[in-house]
Amino acid sequence: MLSPPGNLFDSDSRSAGQTLGKEDFAVLVDSPHVKVERIVSNGDASPPGFWYDQPWAEWVAVLAGSAGLAFENEPEVMVLRVGDHILIPPRKRHRVEWTDKRCATIWLAVHYPGPSQSLPI
Amino acid sequence: MLSPPGNLFDSDSRSAGQTLGKEDFAVLVDSPHVKVERIVSNGDASPPGFWYDQPWAEWVAVLAGSAGLAFENEPEVMVLRVGDHILIPPRKRHRVEWTDKRCATIWLAVHYPGPSQSLPI
Repeated sequence: MLSPPGNLFDSDSRSAGQTLGKEDFAVLVDSPHVKVERIVSNGDASPPGFWYDQPWAEWVAVLAGSAGLAFENEPEVMVLRVGDHILIPPRKRHRVEWTDKRCATIWLAVHYPGPSQSLPI
Repeated sequence: MLSPPGNLFDSDSRSAGQTLGKEDFAVLVDSPHVKVERIVSNGDASPPGFWYDQPWAEWVAVLAGSAGLAFENEPEVMVLRVGDHILIPPRKRHRVEWTDKRCATIWLAVHYPGPSQSLPI
């Protein structure tokens, strides 16, 4: 039996009232081989000094809003706007410098094992 | 070194002139564990009598336009509009009944092994 479609822009699971500083995570696919997540940010940024340091690869796209991603040893913050997508290799340390304060920023992230990794992620 | 971002709505790799009946496929992630594809349809449908019958699972979202998906043994065509996403289990036979004739339909598809499958897909 098929499940009915969900919607990536649905506000049902977003943080009530689009409160600044509240991120909303929804796992859309959860398998040993891949995780697909929708993340809704409302002006959120990573805490000062915090870096994501993931052993797996992540492909991420911005579907609404905009964001600035910083990468270790890269001098410039990468600005991502609607439709932009990027591949973050395993162990590439990165942080969210900023997300749009005027509207929700909706991310779609696909996490999967890098070439030399074992499952599950 | 990081690659610069691509854009899901970029028309560079679309079929020139949005010709009806021409689909455009771009592989965004190609790993043993997962494939992420962008597909641009311009009024395309599956050929009469054709069914996709995939041994792997597919999560698919519509990012622009609209489409009708038919599933074997399901009486109604499922209409997908912008943001709608659905999980198609392995071996669930399905076909594209129609896509929007007024604009490009942009799909994002994530292919990954089902629970009892071996890699690679």
